[in-house]
Amino acid sequence: MFSFTLQQTCGKARAGLIKTDHGDILTPVFMPVGTLGTVKAMSPHELEEIQAQIILGNTYHLYMRPGHELILKAGGLHKFISWNRPMLTDSGGFQVMSLAALRKITKEGVKFRSHIDGSLHHFTPESVMEVQEALGADIIMSFDECPPFAASKDYVAKSLTTTLLWAERGKKAFTNTDHQALFGIVQGGVYEDLREKSARELMDMDFPGYSIGGLAVGEGKDDMFRITAFVNDILPKHKPRYLMGVGTPSDLLNNIANGVDMFDCVMPTRNARKGSIFTRYGKMIIKAARYKEDFRPIDPLCGCYTCTHFSRAYIRHLITMNEILGMRLTTIHSLWFYQELMQMVRKAILEDRFDAFLAEMLPVLDTIVE
Amino acid sequence: MFSFTLQQTCGKARAGLIKTDHGDILTPVFMPVGTLGTVKAMSPHELEEIQAQIILGNTYHLYMRPGHELILKAGGLHKFISWNRPMLTDSGGFQVMSLAALRKITKEGVKFRSHIDGSLHHFTPESVMEVQEALGADIIMSFDECPPFAASKDYVAKSLTTTLLWAERGKKAFTNTDHQALFGIVQGGVYEDLREKSARELMDMDFPGYSIGGLAVGEGKDDMFRITAFVNDILPKHKPRYLMGVGTPSDLLNNIANGVDMFDCVMPTRNARKGSIFTRYGKMIIKAARYKEDFRPIDPLCGCYTCTHFSRAYIRHLITMNEILGMRLTTIHSLWFYQELMQMVRKAILEDRFDAFLAEMLPVLDTIVE
Repeated sequence: MFSFTLQQTCGKARAGLIKTDHGDILTPVFMPVGTLGTVKAMSPHELEEIQAQIILGNTYHLYMRPGHELILKAGGLHKFISWNRPMLTDSGGFQVMSLAALRKITKEGVKFRSHIDGSLHHFTPESVMEVQEALGADIIMSFDECPPFAASKDYVAKSLTTTLLWAERGKKAFTNTDHQALFGIVQGGVYEDLREKSARELMDMDFPGYSIGGLAVGEGKDDMFRITAFVNDILPKHKPRYLMGVGTPSDLLNNIANGVDMFDCVMPTRNARKGSIFTRYGKMIIKAARYKEDFRPIDPLCGCYTCTHFSRAYIRHLITMNEILGMRLTTIHSLWFYQELMQMVRKAILEDRFDAFLAEMLPVLDTIVE
Repeated sequence: MFSFTLQQTCGKARAGLIKTDHGDILTPVFMPVGTLGTVKAMSPHELEEIQAQIILGNTYHLYMRPGHELILKAGGLHKFISWNRPMLTDSGGFQVMSLAALRKITKEGVKFRSHIDGSLHHFTPESVMEVQEALGADIIMSFDECPPFAASKDYVAKSLTTTLLWAERGKKAFTNTDHQALFGIVQGGVYEDLREKSARELMDMDFPGYSIGGLAVGEGKDDMFRITAFVNDILPKHKPRYLMGVGTPSDLLNNIANGVDMFDCVMPTRNARKGSIFTRYGKMIIKAARYKEDFRPIDPLCGCYTCTHFSRAYIRHLITMNEILGMRLTTIHSLWFYQELMQMVRKAILEDRFDAFLAEMLPVLDTIVE
């Protein structure tokens, strides 16, 4: 059974506790992304070591390969990938928009061609519930249309009307309410009136949690922060808020300051595999020549496997040689840092000093480590 | 300090104990290959978990990148790659032959161009000792020429004369005798008279161990087994014998039957990354359609991380998707199996039932699992 307890606030920043069938989640929380049933380069054991509380799977990708029916036969996604802690799946709406070809959006749903083999598929609010029930994640999402940033306000308004209908239909079709929590996704682009309409109508449907979608799609950071602040002022205090697809460490802090509880993003893992590592001192570009004979760990204060065993020089060598271990070690550090940052944030909120923490951390996080 | 104790024989098969500064090695032993300072896809922690006793580094590759001087500054290869158990480096002779361009072999050494950037290099018996002393492996190799299988007997004979001179010069140049053991490499192609000359002259130089080089270069298995049997009948009983670059599980068993103690090969790791997995039942081609909905582990009797946590169906999905975790899980299983096979062999030798073990295992190992 799903529940959320708001434990403490500090300004708009919140510390909370989510309970699920697969365990508890302390918020604010960052969820590593396991697109195809694996957080790239990581084993489930290592995800436990970096203290991941919950990971994400992508409904669109898993529906395509290996298919939700196969995963259902395997006993669900948790069992298939050997991950016993909480899991969340997205709606597929974002991927249908960003990956699939020849989309045709109607009130009924979206017809599209697979980005892999061109085969024809039809996602409806009901079919997406069926897929996510087969996958069996603890937290699942309503099917939504995620309009591109370039869309006109008129388009976004029409799209929103459809998405709200879909939310209602999905909620009706969803049956596994004892074991999975269905979140509604607030859309409406950068337009406050549309965001308000979206939030209020979803609140009328009474979801156990709310996602903020359609951001991190090309709008500036100011727009992102403005919209999350605006939406969170409307959303109910005693339900969790999940900002989808965000972001850098400073994005997380700024959005936590605006009342967000949950995040996911491929950035720490994707960047790590290319040798761009997040640290408490800023971003470290490990291929830089200055690390060639640097025998210190990435972060001497860090307790992760990478920093307690290996030097910058060795990791630089591995990443330069495109060795799998290099990608593993950088991923381990960046994810550990994201988890540690969330733990530090939570502590600061609980100790009523989040603003001071923010003022200390924010100026450093977006710099490049020299 | 290096030592070898022959503990038991069973026919020509041998069980022994090698002692080094970084720990003991029970033989027969298979050494996973860490070409560029990493056993591909594996962490040092995982190498300990699969019970690797010793791993190999390639002198040619490490000399090229990141360079032996950098590794010396890091405190040696053990420290650079965070591996505290024994290590062995090869001579670079095989890679100079198989990778480098525009080789010019003289009595002095080999001039060649790098396979990476075309830069000019000069390996001599003395320079290769300097490189291997900088790397600091527990067991190191004399510089040798490794003639191709297609070479004429006349060429092999001349090459052997040079290699024997180089062995003597290398031994003279090698100074770190308290902490590293230098093996001589028996060459001579598929020609017994040349192999005998090589073995006897190297024995006169009194190396602490002997390698058998120049096999697994295209000759048939019968030639390989004939030559290892022939050479091992000449080599001293109380020194270890290392067959370089071999091989499949059945190759290991057949050569152990001929008196070999040590092996290395990229095959278990390279094949694993492509989805071809070694098991006690034969080779498993995990991409095969029959594994799509096979929710059993690769080997239900196996105790490795892969087999205790993941199904064939999941590993098939990961390998098909080219996910790093797929390559990691197949590598872990194949290396675990190689280590377990060597432990089983050793037990069979100690219990004087190696022939029965061989008769039981050999018919299965080269089959494809259905």
